[in-house]
Amino acid sequence: MLPGIGVFGTGPVVKVLVPILRENGFKIEAIWSKILQDAQAAAKELAVPFFTDKIDDVLLRRDVDLIFVLCSPNLHAQISVKALGIGKHIVCDKPAGLNQVDALKMVRAGQYYPTLISVINHSFRFLPAFLHMKKKLEENYLVSPMTLIDIRIQCGSLFGDIDTFDWKCDDTMGGGALNLIGSHIIDLVTFLTNQKAVRVHGIVKAFTKHTHKIKGIRQITAPDFCAFQMELQNGVLVTTTINSHTVGSTFQQEIMICSSTAHLVVRGGDLLGRKGDKNAEEVIYLDVEDLKCPLPNSFLPKTFIKGLCKMVSALREAFLPVNEKAGWIKEPVCSAANFEDGLYVQAVLAAIRESSQTRQWVKVSIMTEQPDKNELLSAVVRRTAISMS
Amino acid sequence: MLPGIGVFGTGPVVKVLVPILRENGFKIEAIWSKILQDAQAAAKELAVPFFTDKIDDVLLRRDVDLIFVLCSPNLHAQISVKALGIGKHIVCDKPAGLNQVDALKMVRAGQYYPTLISVINHSFRFLPAFLHMKKKLEENYLVSPMTLIDIRIQCGSLFGDIDTFDWKCDDTMGGGALNLIGSHIIDLVTFLTNQKAVRVHGIVKAFTKHTHKIKGIRQITAPDFCAFQMELQNGVLVTTTINSHTVGSTFQQEIMICSSTAHLVVRGGDLLGRKGDKNAEEVIYLDVEDLKCPLPNSFLPKTFIKGLCKMVSALREAFLPVNEKAGWIKEPVCSAANFEDGLYVQAVLAAIRESSQTRQWVKVSIMTEQPDKNELLSAVVRRTAISMS
Repeated sequence: MLPGIGVFGTGPVVKVLVPILRENGFKIEAIWSKILQDAQAAAKELAVPFFTDKIDDVLLRRDVDLIFVLCSPNLHAQISVKALGIGKHIVCDKPAGLNQVDALKMVRAGQYYPTLISVINHSFRFLPAFLHMKKKLEENYLVSPMTLIDIRIQCGSLFGDIDTFDWKCDDTMGGGALNLIGSHIIDLVTFLTNQKAVRVHGIVKAFTKHTHKIKGIRQITAPDFCAFQMELQNGVLVTTTINSHTVGSTFQQEIMICSSTAHLVVRGGDLLGRKGDKNAEEVIYLDVEDLKCPLPNSFLPKTFIKGLCKMVSALREAFLPVNEKAGWIKEPVCSAANFEDGLYVQAVLAAIRESSQTRQWVKVSIMTEQPDKNELLSAVVRRTAISMS
Repeated sequence: MLPGIGVFGTGPVVKVLVPILRENGFKIEAIWSKILQDAQAAAKELAVPFFTDKIDDVLLRRDVDLIFVLCSPNLHAQISVKALGIGKHIVCDKPAGLNQVDALKMVRAGQYYPTLISVINHSFRFLPAFLHMKKKLEENYLVSPMTLIDIRIQCGSLFGDIDTFDWKCDDTMGGGALNLIGSHIIDLVTFLTNQKAVRVHGIVKAFTKHTHKIKGIRQITAPDFCAFQMELQNGVLVTTTINSHTVGSTFQQEIMICSSTAHLVVRGGDLLGRKGDKNAEEVIYLDVEDLKCPLPNSFLPKTFIKGLCKMVSALREAFLPVNEKAGWIKEPVCSAANFEDGLYVQAVLAAIRESSQTRQWVKVSIMTEQPDKNELLSAVVRRTAISMS
């Protein structure tokens, strides 16, 4: 039985997600935005029966059992922790929360309610090309040990569709290329290799200060470029360049995994490989439109949207076979990123940011205890935020 | 009047260069290799009338006025300095010599004989796409200030065509992706922007230890991968990834220069650009086969070869209009890399290597004085080498 859905946020991802959810048989019961008018406008546009600017009004609804947290990162932890406490399943946008403090809170809550789904929206894990890549790696396509992962992403401005200054323009609020795209890459590498980063080095730059629409006193501080290197547990080097600073380009991605005798590479949504003495790459998986629903028109990368479609259809398969309300089976969603993965990603992001400031390689250190001060402070912040909402 | 030519080296570049020289009307008078049999075989293959394993036998020939130094880097300085002393023009392969000590010797010799041509074989400076890119930058195509240069090169193994272990397999002898390809990139950035690197960070890796042909006790130590970042004098960031570790790929290059409102990009031999609100890149220069001579078949990248053709034709234009023996005019070759450029490139290479070892950003420091010890030592080495040759 498919659960009713409550959505937090009204951004472009929501506008792409809602039709996909509906196509998969889910019913969207409620939508929330911090600004009531935005919630109202989105509800109208997306034909959602209920809208609100109060968090609890969504969480406490009896017809809502699955929550999509797609609002600004500073609210991720608060909403997710509360929702789990009330017994709702959670899909939270990446990266989990604003920082490790947030992410650790989410991990604790997720551990406390293991019967509830709590996953991070790392939709690349569901993209067929990456699933095939993972399979080929497990089948030892590379023959000799993995040596290098070389990743390059080029895309249009992350600020192009933003009309007024919001969290996406603000570095400290979770905006920018490192948080929004880098987080996917960090998670993907671990998903593909089962290896975590030990040490990182990075450069994070906010080149774009203004756009045609954002040209007031407030400058954009969210980075539009980052280049980072990760050393994995097994010694493999990962080099990544994410350039959203190019003017108006379409989204291009290349994820190449090498050994000394072979390589696998995902370009766009296709998987190619070459090994031994062969002169040309062989096509291993060609991206085809095998979705029930057509891809919606959006400036979001096609591969992101396709991954999202696949993730939603995995959620459908998790819920559909179980008759009781909000009951589910694990298998279809077991490859999703969980809140522990979210904490790890935040730890790597923090190390990359530190490296960019100190110009040093930085050891990745995953938080296991809430720092006391932050705990207090953020509890205050949370209480304030709840009473405001 | 075109000068007679003496060639040092018998490698793939020589085999590509000799036909190009001949096509441009130059006469190749002599060829040298450290191993007499190699010299003999190359002379036969390339129809060169004279071969030798003695350096002076080429340098002292009256019919030779222009020397191409395309042998192993440890001999660059010795041959170049001596040749200039005897009054011969020099085109030396990149990077100049093995290190800054070598490069500084060459600079001193070049300064001492300003009436002789002394250039480094950075043929990218002659590739039309880059000349057009430089022109567009000067015409302020980017509108707002330059922010980022993002460079990516992928190519097949640098060791694929090497039958037995030689200097190209050896890091300390000048082999590998950083020396052979990175040097071009470092020079190109300065050529395009008139800016030098102040600080660098890099990772240099020798993943490939053996090939099908090189599988004895000696391992390849020359790097097949490097990723480096340079901070230029004007604050512009340059990020570069050179991956020759991929199995059997063809050569691909992308050099992108961005501002906040526009970009220029060379892909292969083509120049594209986009600015303002335009949705698509415009083609600014499309690589066409405008050479008198057809490009020879070679595993060397087409863009390298094309640059070489253009450089040779510039040399022809420098020499042809002057009637006296070995006389020349400056203009056609004034954009070539000189020995000072060669010294700068060696300084950046040294800083990148140091950074890769220390895992720190390293300040680029250009040598201005020969270290005494090395001076003595290398004088001895030089004398020994000359007496051996």
